[in-house]
Amino acid sequence: MKIVRWDASAWAFSPDKLKKVGLFQTERFFLDLYCLEPGQSQTPHAHAGADKLYLVAQGRARVQIADEERTLVAGEGVLAASGEVHGLVNDSGERAVVLTFMSPPPPKNA
Amino acid sequence: MKIVRWDASAWAFSPDKLKKVGLFQTERFFLDLYCLEPGQSQTPHAHAGADKLYLVAQGRARVQIADEERTLVAGEGVLAASGEVHGLVNDSGERAVVLTFMSPPPPKNA
Repeated sequence: MKIVRWDASAWAFSPDKLKKVGLFQTERFFLDLYCLEPGQSQTPHAHAGADKLYLVAQGRARVQIADEERTLVAGEGVLAASGEVHGLVNDSGERAVVLTFMSPPPPKNA
Repeated sequence: MKIVRWDASAWAFSPDKLKKVGLFQTERFFLDLYCLEPGQSQTPHAHAGADKLYLVAQGRARVQIADEERTLVAGEGVLAASGEVHGLVNDSGERAVVLTFMSPPPPKNA
């Protein structure tokens, strides 16, 4: 079996933009680590027919779901159901890491 | 939006058997916390057409995937792909918590 690390040893950051670290990918889902330096973000967008889950693993992130925004801290998570606009921004002064599940994965990743 | 906690404040244990704490459920996946006292287990089983992911969040668990067994510690995860026999046992002396993602969920949960 292939054991994959998802803790700090797997985190990677880019000075340019949010860094996505792919952990698992099947035809049914993906699990990525989204690693955000302060100020980095994922632009709000939506997927028809796919659910996404954000679980904050480190730091804090301001998450948008539909027309609502909330700050989530490590240990909190939220669902963006099919069709709901969703995005996030690290508006804190510290690095943030978010476990991100999506089911099914986008066609380009499948 | 509904913010859900997945850290220690959400963990719950049963003296009788592995305790499953449901966090998220859609028609496309579920995410549970599996909370295991020492000696508790999930009996090996398989699902055709569904993938399961175990992410150890606390402690350690001995995981079986197909005919292989390995001990995973917090921060490690492993995929049981569709059809692969999988199960786990907390054979340590401490409590263990495992984030368990399954896509799609079993029909009885959908």
